[in-house]
Amino acid sequence: MIDKKLKGIIPPMITPLLGKDELDVEGLKRLVEHMLAGGVHGLFVLGTTGEAPSLSYHLRYELVERVCKQVAGRVPVLVGVTDTSFTESIRLAEQSKAYGADAVVSAPPYYYAPSQQELIEYYEDMADHMPLPLFLYNMPSHVKVSFEPETVRRIAHHPNVIGLKDSSGNMIYFHTLIQMMKTEHPDFSLLIGPEELTAEAVLAGADGGVNGGANLFPRLYTDLYEAAVRRDMDTVLTLQQQVMFISNTIYKIGRYGSSYLKGLKCACSLMGICSDFMASPYHRFRKEERLKVQQVLEHLNVKIVNP
Amino acid sequence: MIDKKLKGIIPPMITPLLGKDELDVEGLKRLVEHMLAGGVHGLFVLGTTGEAPSLSYHLRYELVERVCKQVAGRVPVLVGVTDTSFTESIRLAEQSKAYGADAVVSAPPYYYAPSQQELIEYYEDMADHMPLPLFLYNMPSHVKVSFEPETVRRIAHHPNVIGLKDSSGNMIYFHTLIQMMKTEHPDFSLLIGPEELTAEAVLAGADGGVNGGANLFPRLYTDLYEAAVRRDMDTVLTLQQQVMFISNTIYKIGRYGSSYLKGLKCACSLMGICSDFMASPYHRFRKEERLKVQQVLEHLNVKIVNP
Amino acid sequence: MIDKKLKGIIPPMITPLLGKDELDVEGLKRLVEHMLAGGVHGLFVLGTTGEAPSLSYHLRYELVERVCKQVAGRVPVLVGVTDTSFTESIRLAEQSKAYGADAVVSAPPYYYAPSQQELIEYYEDMADHMPLPLFLYNMPSHVKVSFEPETVRRIAHHPNVIGLKDSSGNMIYFHTLIQMMKTEHPDFSLLIGPEELTAEAVLAGADGGVNGGANLFPRLYTDLYEAAVRRDMDTVLTLQQQVMFISNTIYKIGRYGSSYLKGLKCACSLMGICSDFMASPYHRFRKEERLKVQQVLEHLNVKIVNP
Amino acid sequence: MIDKKLKGIIPPMITPLLGKDELDVEGLKRLVEHMLAGGVHGLFVLGTTGEAPSLSYHLRYELVERVCKQVAGRVPVLVGVTDTSFTESIRLAEQSKAYGADAVVSAPPYYYAPSQQELIEYYEDMADHMPLPLFLYNMPSHVKVSFEPETVRRIAHHPNVIGLKDSSGNMIYFHTLIQMMKTEHPDFSLLIGPEELTAEAVLAGADGGVNGGANLFPRLYTDLYEAAVRRDMDTVLTLQQQVMFISNTIYKIGRYGSSYLKGLKCACSLMGICSDFMASPYHRFRKEERLKVQQVLEHLNVKIVNP
Repeated sequence: MIDKKLKGIIPPMITPLLGKDELDVEGLKRLVEHMLAGGVHGLFVLGTTGEAPSLSYHLRYELVERVCKQVAGRVPVLVGVTDTSFTESIRLAEQSKAYGADAVVSAPPYYYAPSQQELIEYYEDMADHMPLPLFLYNMPSHVKVSFEPETVRRIAHHPNVIGLKDSSGNMIYFHTLIQMMKTEHPDFSLLIGPEELTAEAVLAGADGGVNGGANLFPRLYTDLYEAAVRRDMDTVLTLQQQVMFISNTIYKIGRYGSSYLKGLKCACSLMGICSDFMASPYHRFRKEERLKVQQVLEHLNVKIVNP
Repeated sequence: MIDKKLKGIIPPMITPLLGKDELDVEGLKRLVEHMLAGGVHGLFVLGTTGEAPSLSYHLRYELVERVCKQVAGRVPVLVGVTDTSFTESIRLAEQSKAYGADAVVSAPPYYYAPSQQELIEYYEDMADHMPLPLFLYNMPSHVKVSFEPETVRRIAHHPNVIGLKDSSGNMIYFHTLIQMMKTEHPDFSLLIGPEELTAEAVLAGADGGVNGGANLFPRLYTDLYEAAVRRDMDTVLTLQQQVMFISNTIYKIGRYGSSYLKGLKCACSLMGICSDFMASPYHRFRKEERLKVQQVLEHLNVKIVNP
Repeated sequence: MIDKKLKGIIPPMITPLLGKDELDVEGLKRLVEHMLAGGVHGLFVLGTTGEAPSLSYHLRYELVERVCKQVAGRVPVLVGVTDTSFTESIRLAEQSKAYGADAVVSAPPYYYAPSQQELIEYYEDMADHMPLPLFLYNMPSHVKVSFEPETVRRIAHHPNVIGLKDSSGNMIYFHTLIQMMKTEHPDFSLLIGPEELTAEAVLAGADGGVNGGANLFPRLYTDLYEAAVRRDMDTVLTLQQQVMFISNTIYKIGRYGSSYLKGLKCACSLMGICSDFMASPYHRFRKEERLKVQQVLEHLNVKIVNP
Repeated sequence: MIDKKLKGIIPPMITPLLGKDELDVEGLKRLVEHMLAGGVHGLFVLGTTGEAPSLSYHLRYELVERVCKQVAGRVPVLVGVTDTSFTESIRLAEQSKAYGADAVVSAPPYYYAPSQQELIEYYEDMADHMPLPLFLYNMPSHVKVSFEPETVRRIAHHPNVIGLKDSSGNMIYFHTLIQMMKTEHPDFSLLIGPEELTAEAVLAGADGGVNGGANLFPRLYTDLYEAAVRRDMDTVLTLQQQVMFISNTIYKIGRYGSSYLKGLKCACSLMGICSDFMASPYHRFRKEERLKVQQVLEHLNVKIVNP
């Protein structure tokens, strides 16, 4: 369990798969070590980047067990328990605790869109029943509802709620949370989702980033985080430029909203880290898009292991 | 299994609950018999009105088993298998077949929003693997994506896809589907979700309605359906007025989007049919709203069994 | 001025243009006579189909003057005065009255999105100052806000507000208005915008349709209206099929949301009625799309005057 | 006219009004001098904050004339010419040039939502006809469409297009523009709308901010801009805290989306700068909200001139 404020880069881990209901066990091992070698400060499994909602339950459990075992306490492991069923969220959290996970992360139930009042009651109830410290996960594009600042204020009073990851991309909202928490809950951890915003969020007082690109280039994001912490603006801007380059190339190949996830997994495959098989409803990139990702990686002087 | 085109009123059954993870077994029995006595032409369990995404898996399985056993072939039973995980959808369908269900109903995976091309591939794959005939379920407000007409045309070619239920509320879209299917797939069943639109949909050629109000007043909706089939406009307009009255009273008490579901369960409870306990993230109406529902029912000369 | 309830087909007239700031005067004359010959019950100029917001003010004034003069009381002329500036709305209404127009039509100001309370105050103030009877125009897709039923109820109390045209495409909403007005304001005129919904709206009690297709085929829509009024379902369904055919062909050529307007103007041009020049930000169809429209018209046995 | 890249704080001026169609001439004079005394680097009249779309045309012309005359070249004056009518945009630009304005600012036509291709053609045509240098204004919440980065790239090629003001609040988008323009059009001016984002935008390479709060406290925003330019992070964070305080108090009183504008005008009135009369569809704050704004100003040690 987490005994101090969570800080730094905690990548939302992609889930390496060999088939619709089969983990890429060897790829998973390589991926975890690749990120730890890059200095990440934690791992977040079963998030949006991890395709969690698309995985069967037994696969989710297997993944948590394997990652906890491999990490073995080197960094905190956070488990996404977001679910439309309260009961299934709690069940996954309990099993995650048994496997040795350190905290859980929950976005609002995403079929029915709860009101703010319903959100408060939902999370107060959930926090009461959670066997692990709870992170809120603000993800309005996927769950159709946002935690309004007053809602965060209310839920944050619960001693079992330790932080919030914001993937809204709305920096005005995030600044509001920073101002609110700085005085009211200085121990509450505020993490930013989109890696394009990590630098400015940390400069403004955020505790770190849950950045998908850290699956590929963990060192880039830990370096960016540290440069922002020490207010080294020259380094920040140089690294920010690389972050934007990745964002506007690898994540923008392909026509649909799924380009980010497909590009990320494809690049991991090209770099020899793990398979790029994707859970339904997505499919991995075909040859043409894969070649474009390869060209971007070559431009970045990344070694192509699996062309 | 279904051997002819599905027609008529197939209520999306509410799920009677006694607690977060406990069915109201006696209420469920009464509810099923109440609807069958009202002349419904089928039952659809585990839909949006059934709070399916909020229920644990073992509860979903138990519900399907109990309903299939009780109905015992008197009308077709359709099971909602909508899920973000393809594997869990198939698993529920297989078990539903074993319990004796007649068809399955699936809305698109609702966390990631698939593109139309991804929808086509998803449903062609699903139809290949489904052990029961498959109904498409168009529900854009909850799943963030709509089946475009061309997508329906493509998926409808699959012999295992037998119909579509449209809950978009968009009658222009529905007329487009009617025109398309009339010539291309006359055996494809088109059902309308919102009960406020059942009359005009059936008049225009739809095969029936999946109407939540039929949990409460099954006869009203079967009468409306039959009046529309025989083009008895006087009766249609008289019954439509009652349907609109219910829609603008029972479903509009309470402040949030959940008013429809809460009003429906509350009225069932007042009529002595079943419990109004709701799965998270919802809560049943409190005293004040309950009293308002009671007044509406009294205005309709409905006997209050459980005030 | 209008002295009885407005009923029937009132086409939203396209605005024939020869250039960015020049009316197609001869085309306008032919268009007006073409619609009147088709039995339309009124004309609505300067609506969405009329590209009103894209026209300069002096062009709007000239158009109203010419149409009023030509129609000369044969049917009522309604003028769209929708504007983001209250002052400009009133000014156009005053001039329209001077030209002989019968009523004005106003959608909410469309840059800032007013709240419902602000809408009520806005329209009560506007109705006080309008020199002509006022029709509300519900058009949420373009103005970002809808008149909620309670808001309509409030505004409809004003003696100078005589009806509402609903272009939301939301038939549940429209049924709610029908039920509300039937008892509370039986003289309030309810007109439906989308022509695909005219039949069911009139069957349910609406007073008529403001249908763009009546620029092209006025007789089709007046026949449909009359068949619905006398509940001749066989004729209704036959004509509805033609309406849907037009909707899914002529209005769906071209890639953007502007296909409807472009298709409509293009068909008018092919039929020799008027020019298809469009105001910025739109452009008329090019050769390729024009040929497709021509093929649809030929399929409908329409004489191509201007290929 | 502007002969070098526009930089710094260019407040979007509120429009002081005495009535629906009457300028607060004395208030306007005080307001302009108040901002110039606070060191602003330009003035932007007839923007969203200026309620431009709600004003009659003759009032818009009068305002431009008065401001140009008063500023008399001390700083550049930018005029918002956003309109749904191309012709009216050009006409206002021509008159603004005659009055001595330095540049015009245009958001996309906001009734019909143009496609990206239509946007490109619209702005290339507009830039050809504009008598003054043209700023693009990205404002998707109000105009329903955003300039996609590729669209900006295309339009920016035109020599008469000199910059873009982004009010989307989407910092990922803004970083993308910064990276794109830095190499391709280093003379293209990028300004940020929301004042809550000015600091990070300037730190990342933006040229300045179009910040509504500078109507009230011009020095706060010019100080923030300058601190960001010299990368003085301690000062940036201290001033950012004040900016967020204003944002979460003065702009959040009142229930609707109009709170920002109402709060801003109300505070100007309390400070004795100008009237808080608002153009339809808005109304100024009543006593209760006014008192709350007063309390915030007192908390900030601002002298209340007009309680």
